[in-house]
Amino acid sequence: MVDTANTPSTLQLFPYEDRPGWKGYVEWEARPDRKEIVRELLKGKEFTPDPEFQFVPLPTTNPVLIGDRWKEYHEVVGLRSIVDVSWEVVQKEKADMIHLLDFPYNGETKREHLLEKLTDNKHHFVRNHGGVPDIDEDAFELEIGGFVHRSVKLSLKDLKDETKFPQSEVTVTIQCSGTRRIEQIQQYPGEGDDLINAPWGEGAIGTAVYRGVPLKKVLKHACGGVLPECEHLEFIGADTYFKKGEVYNYAVSAPWRKVRASEEVLLAWEMNGEPLPKIHGGPLRVVVAGYIGARSCKWVYKINALAEPSMGPVQQQEYLYYTSQIGKQNHKFSNGFSIQDMPVSSAILYPLDKTVVIHDGVINLRGWAYSGGGCWVERVEVSPDGGHVWYAVQPDDLTEKHYYAWRLWKIELPVDAEGWLEFCVRTWDSHCNTEPTFVRSAWNWDLHVTSSCHRIKVYSVNKSKPATAQRLQALESRGIPFMPLTKPLEFPLEDTQDYLASLRKYPREPKN
Amino acid sequence: MVDTANTPSTLQLFPYEDRPGWKGYVEWEARPDRKEIVRELLKGKEFTPDPEFQFVPLPTTNPVLIGDRWKEYHEVVGLRSIVDVSWEVVQKEKADMIHLLDFPYNGETKREHLLEKLTDNKHHFVRNHGGVPDIDEDAFELEIGGFVHRSVKLSLKDLKDETKFPQSEVTVTIQCSGTRRIEQIQQYPGEGDDLINAPWGEGAIGTAVYRGVPLKKVLKHACGGVLPECEHLEFIGADTYFKKGEVYNYAVSAPWRKVRASEEVLLAWEMNGEPLPKIHGGPLRVVVAGYIGARSCKWVYKINALAEPSMGPVQQQEYLYYTSQIGKQNHKFSNGFSIQDMPVSSAILYPLDKTVVIHDGVINLRGWAYSGGGCWVERVEVSPDGGHVWYAVQPDDLTEKHYYAWRLWKIELPVDAEGWLEFCVRTWDSHCNTEPTFVRSAWNWDLHVTSSCHRIKVYSVNKSKPATAQRLQALESRGIPFMPLTKPLEFPLEDTQDYLASLRKYPREPKN
Repeated sequence: MVDTANTPSTLQLFPYEDRPGWKGYVEWEARPDRKEIVRELLKGKEFTPDPEFQFVPLPTTNPVLIGDRWKEYHEVVGLRSIVDVSWEVVQKEKADMIHLLDFPYNGETKREHLLEKLTDNKHHFVRNHGGVPDIDEDAFELEIGGFVHRSVKLSLKDLKDETKFPQSEVTVTIQCSGTRRIEQIQQYPGEGDDLINAPWGEGAIGTAVYRGVPLKKVLKHACGGVLPECEHLEFIGADTYFKKGEVYNYAVSAPWRKVRASEEVLLAWEMNGEPLPKIHGGPLRVVVAGYIGARSCKWVYKINALAEPSMGPVQQQEYLYYTSQIGKQNHKFSNGFSIQDMPVSSAILYPLDKTVVIHDGVINLRGWAYSGGGCWVERVEVSPDGGHVWYAVQPDDLTEKHYYAWRLWKIELPVDAEGWLEFCVRTWDSHCNTEPTFVRSAWNWDLHVTSSCHRIKVYSVNKSKPATAQRLQALESRGIPFMPLTKPLEFPLEDTQDYLASLRKYPREPKN
Repeated sequence: MVDTANTPSTLQLFPYEDRPGWKGYVEWEARPDRKEIVRELLKGKEFTPDPEFQFVPLPTTNPVLIGDRWKEYHEVVGLRSIVDVSWEVVQKEKADMIHLLDFPYNGETKREHLLEKLTDNKHHFVRNHGGVPDIDEDAFELEIGGFVHRSVKLSLKDLKDETKFPQSEVTVTIQCSGTRRIEQIQQYPGEGDDLINAPWGEGAIGTAVYRGVPLKKVLKHACGGVLPECEHLEFIGADTYFKKGEVYNYAVSAPWRKVRASEEVLLAWEMNGEPLPKIHGGPLRVVVAGYIGARSCKWVYKINALAEPSMGPVQQQEYLYYTSQIGKQNHKFSNGFSIQDMPVSSAILYPLDKTVVIHDGVINLRGWAYSGGGCWVERVEVSPDGGHVWYAVQPDDLTEKHYYAWRLWKIELPVDAEGWLEFCVRTWDSHCNTEPTFVRSAWNWDLHVTSSCHRIKVYSVNKSKPATAQRLQALESRGIPFMPLTKPLEFPLEDTQDYLASLRKYPREPKN
């Protein structure tokens, strides 16, 4: 769609390595001149529209969706190499994922890798907003400024120096607010964001042990604390972000109150005992435990103490929670509220939706349950009948409590009924909050926070029932598998004599 | 899948024209020898499986589905010409349809042709179970036997002789019990019948004026009445039907009580003032008003007065209503009840599902409402909120009452809310029956009789609201269409000063 031959001069406009050892990083926030050039370059250009995937079925390919438009933005401003290098990092660090979007990379954990309390680094979900910078650890530097007593620059070595800052290890579940978005899309299409609102399933969530230093300690020991004007901490990442024809570095913020109150706003360089992978923000990222993943800024190289929330588009214009009646016709940045702490939610991982389960009167289910903001999961309940009767998961069948992490659960559910059943799960957290009942109960234009009870359809075949056992035996003796469910049975289902006997005993019409 | 070269001898086995002037008719019911040959020919052969369309999205082609398997059955027994001739009839008589299945032909009326009280012959839906026989009117003969005082053979000329039989004209809605089946499939896949359970929408229904002679009059005047043993009248059609490796002529039955009680079991040769089209059963079909369409046997050439319902597979093994928990694992012919009289049901034809409607506070809806068994539609109600508040259609906005036909309706619905709304319709008939609330309320394995409230999703844009009017104006001034809904807006949605003013007036976090 874009004729790059017309913009050869852009190839030298911006450095691919804006500082030595910082590949794929371009400074935008401190360079309004560069932003102006990009604005002019993008103006009036035609880009490939994002594919329509909400009103039509999703492609069954992997990658599921292709980020042509964002690749073209990079191409036009001469930064195509960011695209290519990012994909190389994906192939190296995230080979075994459901690739929802190839660029900026969005990858979902496969279900089989969600069944461990800690998610392997190579399987942990990724939701990036731009390319992956490749920053040399030794060249890395973090700058802290704004309403602090002392502005500082800290190398990674400084940060890791335990004589300067006490370190923490925290078990944290990070969740994209798009988790289970597919359920909202399937009910009603919503916001088609410029950066595709990826159609996540249950795997936009993962748990890891992060090691780093609490931001409050850095602010205290390195900066002498914040000034009274400081209400928010802005985090700026080295990645390049486009929004409505403008270019930015990724920027978000968290309130000072949140940073101050807990040890769990970390500057982290380690994930599950390994150096933080590049695709997860290495060498340094913020981990804002309990918050939406978007605030855990990756490749963070600047922190600003501000009086107001960040004006970066991710903070100001996105991750907003609208009423269900606000939409394309009337949404503004100020009529949605900002998603920060995550609500209580859960998911069934097994069985999969729309599967046939042949059983003896008991069906096993497994899944995750999580609540943000420092609340923890108290109880998980599963219903075999669409939400009428609820069975509680036993304490032994839940992984241990954390302030900032999920609990995995499993249950053996007594199931008598056959045919299509609807299972659903709901979780109660330590605030006694639980989940909305239906997707519609919390549907919103930006398709965020699908916190409603997760529902799956299972076709139950209870072979402890004589008629079913008999049918299964008839199939087995003929060598016919039960699946696929919709494949018709080719043999007569009932002996003619039996049928006639039944017809005579229970006639079709009344006798009189 | 079938190597026809291996079965050349079958090419002469069965006549394509079993009686002079009866093309495409083969007698099976009186010829057990022929049935035995077919059973042997089909045994052990591999046929193309029916396509899986319930667990995956439907093809967007027209024809939607291809009846390879049934074509192969015909090919193996040397009757491929039936397939080809049928498709020629479709192209001649039904060019402008949604072709759900090419063979046996299943065609759905397009919505725009459902808005007239009488459905044009060329647009009336068709659900055939076999090929279309091409029978010369002058050669045609109807045989009546079984428990009658006198067995007779009647030419079409005899039947049309008003000195022998009084004629009737009746306005009749014929409905396939598969109407709106797609809604059941979308919720839960079900029976994959050998003859594809076509994924009908709202258009497997149509209304016509049929002219013919009431069957009861023929039985009385031609046969001297039925014998006391007679409880059911079996209708046999000239079409060829396959079921589980066996071959039949199409056969169904209706109770004698139904035939005797009403004038509306007709032997009909005229449809909407025109000779009955071939594809609708010409030269002669049965019209069993108020019943499922399957009983209105086409190309009827034999009527048997029986003590019990027909043992034909369509009557015995199909069109059975199972409980929602009965399915592949346990269904038998005798544990479903036979669908004869149709229940009350309705559909919204406009707007279409998942459309954006830009309006001034009022949305217009149109649709049909029907009840079988001689009940008529008394009231139609439409809800703008998923079934909480119901607005009744005014009497002037309903077409006139008939004992055996639908009423079309329209309504101007006051709609304030914006965003995704769910409209639904329910109908009350003269027995005070109304419709189940949700698809799940009446889902059944054979996917018949989707009589639950029909629901559509509409994205409401109410331009009588100032914020919406302003947004639409902003779009217009930039030459940007509102549709597609999911296409993101590329301009800033809110002035930065307005945003900041709002942020300061309504701060993100509490002050204390």
